[in-house]
Amino acid sequence: LPLLLTPGPLSTAPEVRAAANHDWGSRENDFIELTDRLRRRLVALAGSRELVAVPIQGSGTFAVESMLGTMVPPTGRVLILVNGSYGRRMVEICRRIGRSYRVLECEEDCVPNTSALERLLSKDPLITHVAVVEVETTSGIQNPLAEIAQTVFSAGRRLLVDAMSSFGALTPHHDVVPYDALAASSNKCLEGLPGLAFVIAKKDALSAAVGSAPSLSLDLHDQWQAFEKNGQWRFTPPTQIVAALDRALDLLEAEGGTKARTLRYRNNLSVVRKGMDELGFRAFLPEHLNAPIIATFHPPPGEFDFEAFHRELLALRFAIYPGKLTTKPSFRVGCIGQVFPSDMRDFVNAAAAALDRCRDGEMRNLAYRSAKKDGRVVL
Amino acid sequence: LPLLLTPGPLSTAPEVRAAANHDWGSRENDFIELTDRLRRRLVALAGSRELVAVPIQGSGTFAVESMLGTMVPPTGRVLILVNGSYGRRMVEICRRIGRSYRVLECEEDCVPNTSALERLLSKDPLITHVAVVEVETTSGIQNPLAEIAQTVFSAGRRLLVDAMSSFGALTPHHDVVPYDALAASSNKCLEGLPGLAFVIAKKDALSAAVGSAPSLSLDLHDQWQAFEKNGQWRFTPPTQIVAALDRALDLLEAEGGTKARTLRYRNNLSVVRKGMDELGFRAFLPEHLNAPIIATFHPPPGEFDFEAFHRELLALRFAIYPGKLTTKPSFRVGCIGQVFPSDMRDFVNAAAAALDRCRDGEMRNLAYRSAKKDGRVVL
Repeated sequence: LPLLLTPGPLSTAPEVRAAANHDWGSRENDFIELTDRLRRRLVALAGSRELVAVPIQGSGTFAVESMLGTMVPPTGRVLILVNGSYGRRMVEICRRIGRSYRVLECEEDCVPNTSALERLLSKDPLITHVAVVEVETTSGIQNPLAEIAQTVFSAGRRLLVDAMSSFGALTPHHDVVPYDALAASSNKCLEGLPGLAFVIAKKDALSAAVGSAPSLSLDLHDQWQAFEKNGQWRFTPPTQIVAALDRALDLLEAEGGTKARTLRYRNNLSVVRKGMDELGFRAFLPEHLNAPIIATFHPPPGEFDFEAFHRELLALRFAIYPGKLTTKPSFRVGCIGQVFPSDMRDFVNAAAAALDRCRDGEMRNLAYRSAKKDGRVVL
Repeated sequence: LPLLLTPGPLSTAPEVRAAANHDWGSRENDFIELTDRLRRRLVALAGSRELVAVPIQGSGTFAVESMLGTMVPPTGRVLILVNGSYGRRMVEICRRIGRSYRVLECEEDCVPNTSALERLLSKDPLITHVAVVEVETTSGIQNPLAEIAQTVFSAGRRLLVDAMSSFGALTPHHDVVPYDALAASSNKCLEGLPGLAFVIAKKDALSAAVGSAPSLSLDLHDQWQAFEKNGQWRFTPPTQIVAALDRALDLLEAEGGTKARTLRYRNNLSVVRKGMDELGFRAFLPEHLNAPIIATFHPPPGEFDFEAFHRELLALRFAIYPGKLTTKPSFRVGCIGQVFPSDMRDFVNAAAAALDRCRDGEMRNLAYRSAKKDGRVVL
């Protein structure tokens, strides 16, 4: 059982998986109550009574697509801030679903420039919405949501947030960032199982979005209305995953809420950045831009075979992710899920051992190739 | 723990739920192998090497929408055969995603008329596809897929099948019904957990569907290409649900394959139809039209409070579904999932007891009302 140091799926608590060991009739009262409680708990995490939570089957991308398709009307236009893959994914979604969009892109180690945003908004009055990824797990960068929100609201536009990797740990209270909608998932900072996502939206904005979605499955407004009418999902929900998320929220409370969780993640990040630095792995981002979600590292100087490093680490019980940067070779180490600073220390030790083994392997390879060249080895 | 006698979510085997008690890294080799094995097993169930299986996150409706959006090109037109809610749902999907469609509708207790289908196809050369629900769980009716397919192919059109409640038990081999694509789910006759669906499509037809889907999340072609490229899901898969389905397929094999499973379901249906008939509940469909998936019953003559009946049955450990017929009051009893003829016998006994209790309750109510009227009760 490797520990998953990835942006997801994550390592989850045994209690969360145990909560899934049950069959629910999705139209029975106990499941209706479970869904209702879950929706109220998600709104409570977001912080405002103006909001409603609309869970949706599938991965986080399904929720992002349902948010863009439902909240941006066919006559609207969305300006998408891009500094990584998940921003680009929103662009691709808008292209597919036929929503008018503009892009403001910057480098993957930079945050969006709010002056440029302001200029763009004043130049293009057709832009109705701005969409941004709060934590871009491509690099691990934390975009300045409050500052961006300020610019968007001053310009009289509406904000949509991909808070996939931040909700439940980093996303500010809705009073501070009064977004129209935010998309997130069961399996990131909430530490549930994958297979469920959700959008949290302002009631009045969602109300106005009737008939807007270019999809039946991903129509948030219709799903919201169904919940309001009889508490039921329109289409078969992943009952086990829904129950697991409800249990995961118990554990979040038991941990001390989002503040305590963020603190654990910050400690995780701090241990891994320091330890990896000592091993010669330079972090891609300066510390103040690195959200406590995932860290991107450059390979060490000299030859480095990520596949071999990954394999050695896996043998030592740790799963890490390849990089997603467009410009440079890199790899990523996640800090979220049921992982603790002691796990991160174990990981750093494992990384040291894996690196040694890779280097030994390379030395043997070199020696072997040189011996072969000299005719000292016969195949 | 009630036994779920519904069209889904279903009662599952403990082994299936136990298989979900694990965390997988979705981009690690073991999970890539799991996905690959699952895809091959689904194709093997369908029966032809011309086919590929493309799993998709979410409920069955997500798979149906992805099938219609991907397989019917923007220039195409689909004729939808309707004799219940799931046929109507395909109409609603086409309306939302902007695919041209026509409807051939018949009563909920009738199967589509193939002569009418033939006439419609010859009259409208713009129709490129015909879509049909194999088992319409609105009533439990089994539509004659082979006969419909014959008419569709003779007219040179392509067939799309919603095989949600039939795949794994009833759907004929692809040699007999060479559909372009079929949509189904993990949680019906395959008896996995809900949260995962899939489309099985002819390679050449799916190949031709590049760029057709009006959605990123529900683009089958792109998801297929990703599987072909590196075996990976484009977006976070519901790892536990994927593993549970793989385990559920082991149990299907252990049971003796689809034939043995269908036989069990037929026995379930037979016990419940006979037993309910003896209690005075008439079946909505004649036996030869009732697929061994779910049975619809009329309420018994006289007063009948379904809510009370449902509540009494739940207290006796059985969950059943309200009816979905548009014209008549009814309720439904499912025959699929981990339920056996002995369970169905227990259910019939429970239904008898529940009916008695409801009637006692009514008698008490009547007596109470009459006593109150006579002034014999003071509140």
